[in-house]
Amino acid sequence: MTQTLFTAKAPATSQGAATAKQPLNISGRHYIQGQWQAEKLNSFSAINAVTFEPLPWLFAECQATELDNACEAAHQAFLSYREKTALERAALLRQMAQELRIAASDIIAIARQETALTELRLQGELTRTCNQLLMFAQALENQPEGLVVLDKALPERQPPRPQLELTQLPLGPVAVFAASNFPLAFSVAGGDTASALAAGCTVVVKAHSAHPATCDRVMQALVHAIELCEMPKAVLSLVQAKSYDISHQLVKHPRIKAMAFTGSFRVGMALKDSINQRAEPIPCYAELGSLNPQLVLPELALSSATELAQQLVASTTGSGGQLCTKPGLWLLPHTAAAELLLDTAISAMQQVQPQTLLHPGIYKSYQAQTAERALQVKTLATGLSAEKQASALLFSCSLNQLLATPSLWHEIFGPSALVVRYHSLTELAAFIEKLPGQLAATVHGYQHNLPVHHALLTQLEYQVGRIILAQMPTGVEVCASMQHGGPFPSSSDVRSTSVGLAAMQRFLRPLCRQNFPASD
Amino acid sequence: MTQTLFTAKAPATSQGAATAKQPLNISGRHYIQGQWQAEKLNSFSAINAVTFEPLPWLFAECQATELDNACEAAHQAFLSYREKTALERAALLRQMAQELRIAASDIIAIARQETALTELRLQGELTRTCNQLLMFAQALENQPEGLVVLDKALPERQPPRPQLELTQLPLGPVAVFAASNFPLAFSVAGGDTASALAAGCTVVVKAHSAHPATCDRVMQALVHAIELCEMPKAVLSLVQAKSYDISHQLVKHPRIKAMAFTGSFRVGMALKDSINQRAEPIPCYAELGSLNPQLVLPELALSSATELAQQLVASTTGSGGQLCTKPGLWLLPHTAAAELLLDTAISAMQQVQPQTLLHPGIYKSYQAQTAERALQVKTLATGLSAEKQASALLFSCSLNQLLATPSLWHEIFGPSALVVRYHSLTELAAFIEKLPGQLAATVHGYQHNLPVHHALLTQLEYQVGRIILAQMPTGVEVCASMQHGGPFPSSSDVRSTSVGLAAMQRFLRPLCRQNFPASD
Repeated sequence: MTQTLFTAKAPATSQGAATAKQPLNISGRHYIQGQWQAEKLNSFSAINAVTFEPLPWLFAECQATELDNACEAAHQAFLSYREKTALERAALLRQMAQELRIAASDIIAIARQETALTELRLQGELTRTCNQLLMFAQALENQPEGLVVLDKALPERQPPRPQLELTQLPLGPVAVFAASNFPLAFSVAGGDTASALAAGCTVVVKAHSAHPATCDRVMQALVHAIELCEMPKAVLSLVQAKSYDISHQLVKHPRIKAMAFTGSFRVGMALKDSINQRAEPIPCYAELGSLNPQLVLPELALSSATELAQQLVASTTGSGGQLCTKPGLWLLPHTAAAELLLDTAISAMQQVQPQTLLHPGIYKSYQAQTAERALQVKTLATGLSAEKQASALLFSCSLNQLLATPSLWHEIFGPSALVVRYHSLTELAAFIEKLPGQLAATVHGYQHNLPVHHALLTQLEYQVGRIILAQMPTGVEVCASMQHGGPFPSSSDVRSTSVGLAAMQRFLRPLCRQNFPASD
Repeated sequence: MTQTLFTAKAPATSQGAATAKQPLNISGRHYIQGQWQAEKLNSFSAINAVTFEPLPWLFAECQATELDNACEAAHQAFLSYREKTALERAALLRQMAQELRIAASDIIAIARQETALTELRLQGELTRTCNQLLMFAQALENQPEGLVVLDKALPERQPPRPQLELTQLPLGPVAVFAASNFPLAFSVAGGDTASALAAGCTVVVKAHSAHPATCDRVMQALVHAIELCEMPKAVLSLVQAKSYDISHQLVKHPRIKAMAFTGSFRVGMALKDSINQRAEPIPCYAELGSLNPQLVLPELALSSATELAQQLVASTTGSGGQLCTKPGLWLLPHTAAAELLLDTAISAMQQVQPQTLLHPGIYKSYQAQTAERALQVKTLATGLSAEKQASALLFSCSLNQLLATPSLWHEIFGPSALVVRYHSLTELAAFIEKLPGQLAATVHGYQHNLPVHHALLTQLEYQVGRIILAQMPTGVEVCASMQHGGPFPSSSDVRSTSVGLAAMQRFLRPLCRQNFPASD
């Protein structure tokens, strides 16, 4: 096994969308057992999202033995990491945020080339990533003993009751999959990693092949934090791979005790199938995407239609339409306000600049999916176009066609939405009952008369993880009350969230201590 | 479909272990769509646990159409039951407890014949069953709004934060499987049903074929409560079946949104396999049994050995050794105290009266499993014997043999335990690390010097759901801090408990309401 430190490798010169302000030293290796190492170097390249050309960074493809080593090391590290106090874990998370800030210019320069996301967006995302780490650190500091339920001994009762204390233990090593659309906030240092480390679990991250260099550079920053905090080195591991084999090996590994994933329905469910083959069942937290329906009520005021249209177009096409919470399905009545909304939206969509998507693969998939959809349904509006860039697209079909055509329910990752008109609230209510599970949905246009729509809202609540009044579903607040997850098929486990404080609960389980001396 | 009310059927006369004080009117049918009905009557008999002879009650075998109707009705009932307030649900649970108390003499008389459990035990179990219902009722009354996390709007912040409220919704219809060993507390009106109803879910119970008449009579009491509380009738359904097919159809039904089971590893995992075949993943809560190791430390005082031996024998053989928390594995050192403990235990086991088990099937299984074990390991003690009754058995093998023989890890349901000697704390610690997941484990004989055993206790905590000092694992307190569940293979979902207040959380999931008017 090669165990050369990556610093022995000459730093690559950056090129492409961003100009690096300093050498962007990418290892191209995995970080396993506390070392940068690789058996099979130079297997695949990072790709420039704008030019579709290879970037000068080459990555090793993780081999089965390496993956096995990573999982075993994560288990060994867990045996000592689980003994760390909540305050020690909080200090690690704070140091990680600190190291990310120190490495910010490197990280953003690399991520710009790999993802074509703007500097502003990436700066915001890095801030969010740091804030997520700090949120969990703060939670640990506020409640270092965790959630404890105590039933004191009742020695006089017949039969006597022993002292019983319910506490929580971390599950063990967690497999985390970096997501393509948040190269920072849902990747190596993202919410899944932060919540698992906060819970006391160790983590093996599978890097995303759409931003391998960003993963590499972020990992370097986190390794610095791990070393500074004198944590077990294998508290966090990173493996690079383009083949799906290694992902399946990861979730099937006996040392792995939970899995967190954000991505496509197809890939997420394939991983879930692998988990189903395990001898030992483990929690499978896969956020699988969603259409996030936008219900516009017939009472929408004419005066609100233009603004709502602009919001919908902006939310659909922002970040290239590559957000899990993109409003991908608009349900409109046949009213004058809805006509105005639609006319405004069509004009706005036609003016939308062509969008560079996160990766050539995502671009090609968008082209193929929208081409197929254009054959199935009506195209209402096409945005501006350019080579290797995605044009915004607004499609339309009838409610009945949508209900009868499973492929129309597939999320198209990119700047497009589907408009469906309904004739009555009765028809809308019947539709909601058949809605597959969604991450989020919004009701627009109500006139401060919510009780009238009680039945509709109730039904909608049972189909979603987050129900919104009169706001766009994009822009997910990171806080204790957030829920980012939803009924299947929007996620594989409706009981969990991948954003917000409760995300940590995914990686904990209860333990009862009976007849132990009182802890205080 | 037959929809005759069961009262049209002549009441059967009771016989066997108990003498009924009033006619024990058993329908022999399923309770589906708010009616006692059956397509295929008289398919199997209840069996007298003492004589192995059929009891005069015959039961219908549930047919595929009936099961489908039950699940559809449970869904329809859910649409209205989920609208009930917490206080209305609490009133239902209280009324159910009340009806069970009214029907107590019937229920106990029937259960005695079917299970051979003593009147005292069944009275205690009925009280526990009522208390479980009342515990959830009380919890709903204490906190009718449920668990709510509120993040108030921050309109001045840039970007402004909307008001966000995290609440919980019930999952939908739940499949509950009656367990053989608690014909009341883990059956039709048991903890799974109580916690699911408390959560706002409707329930389809698969009766246990070892106590079908008890299920039938209990259901009649619950139906009375449902009617008095004017709840949707299909809030609870009961199906009778001897074939496993109907169980698999139940957990695969698209209307079913969670499954709760207590029983054998083999049956529980077969049901989990069926759940894995579903298009929509659902929570699978299967409590699969356990050996519940009893670690006796070398520092056990000679003066404590006799009493501990008697406790271990009583706990192993009480209730015929048919408790999930039976201390089935005793780990003893080579000390004088341990020798005394073992000698005392052997003598006590030899005096244990023969035990009537819950059902001829369980008796036959006990005979077969212990016969097989007697060929594998040493038999230390055999209790008194009688026809059709189980003799208590104490087996012994080496640590290495246990580690090398997977079949020795199988729980034997009945009054037997396996004794294993260890030579050093190092050997014990190495063993604990390899221990498969357990519901509970106890450490005996420590001398108020817990910190010395910190590493051992920590490792043990990670292998169990409940860790106990110096007490028997049997006698599971029903309270907020209880944990009855554990790492695989003791349960299929380490995150859940089937006893105690937290059992309700199994059937709830989070919902975030964004930008809704503040509820207060």
